[in-house]
Amino acid sequence: HRAPQKAPPIERRLPCSLEELYKGTTKKMKISREIADASGKTIPVEEILTIDVKPGWKKGTKITFPEKGNEQPNVIPSDLVFIIDEKPHPVFTRDGNDLVVTEKVPLVEALTGHTVHLTTLDGRNLTIPINNIIYPGYEEVVPREGMPIPKDPSKRGNLRIKFDVKFPTRLTSEQKAGIKRLLGQ
Amino acid sequence: HRAPQKAPPIERRLPCSLEELYKGTTKKMKISREIADASGKTIPVEEILTIDVKPGWKKGTKITFPEKGNEQPNVIPSDLVFIIDEKPHPVFTRDGNDLVVTEKVPLVEALTGHTVHLTTLDGRNLTIPINNIIYPGYEEVVPREGMPIPKDPSKRGNLRIKFDVKFPTRLTSEQKAGIKRLLGQ
Repeated sequence: HRAPQKAPPIERRLPCSLEELYKGTTKKMKISREIADASGKTIPVEEILTIDVKPGWKKGTKITFPEKGNEQPNVIPSDLVFIIDEKPHPVFTRDGNDLVVTEKVPLVEALTGHTVHLTTLDGRNLTIPINNIIYPGYEEVVPREGMPIPKDPSKRGNLRIKFDVKFPTRLTSEQKAGIKRLLGQ
Repeated sequence: HRAPQKAPPIERRLPCSLEELYKGTTKKMKISREIADASGKTIPVEEILTIDVKPGWKKGTKITFPEKGNEQPNVIPSDLVFIIDEKPHPVFTRDGNDLVVTEKVPLVEALTGHTVHLTTLDGRNLTIPINNIIYPGYEEVVPREGMPIPKDPSKRGNLRIKFDVKFPTRLTSEQKAGIKRLLGQ
């Protein structure tokens, strides 16, 4: 007679939007499993599991529900493990605790001044005027507008704004002459 | 009585400049080894090995001199293997059969016209006028000015010119007003 063995864990992806990971959310997951009655006969049941996604959780975070797999005689049911996955976001990408956004900016504004308008993941409107010259590779860092840090909710990552400077595709000879006059050494 | 065993190969790096790999060269390598005389006594000798580096050879090319290791009784001398290595070049980097160069260009020239002056690896002067607007990421391809292709000396890779557009660090308000007037939508 052997001691009951434990079935290997069952893993399921839990896709979350970046907004959900930013603000935190509660996910209710319906699962179907077999449970055994006193006689050893198994019957199917449905259960609702509640997962409390904390603000700032990262892709790969695991939430384990012990022994929520199917019940069978002489086997300890497997654990059910949900693994946080991050859905792609149309505006922001995540880099650790930082949020990164790439802003297209026409050359004239890169040289003369540009204002970034962004809606944060919790729906606030940010207005970020940039008075520096925006050269290729320039990065504007907005402190504490990144992702919350789960271990220390008083801290946040940064928002990093990168720029894609769009050059004109053609210039007239008058424009070229004017640029030479203005910028020529 | 066992059959003679062969000693494992001896590998040595053979650093070549990009110019040498472009034009081809002859390398003479002095090696010291022990050879055995008829009685089995070993004596040190020096030898000069000649390696004919062909135009277009790549890093990692191996040239094997069979049984040029030390001689010992009952052992077949090891092979001596030279492995081509490529020394870094101050101007060009190699990407397969292509040569890649990054040219710094002031914004005013990126917009109004720029001429690239380069000395090839065999010492010719190239003058490449660029009349397109040079935007960040723009690449000018000069066909057949890359590395020779050893298997087909009638072909060559390309020369790819990348650009690092240097923006002005500051502009006066007059310059900004002028740029807005010239480039503003």
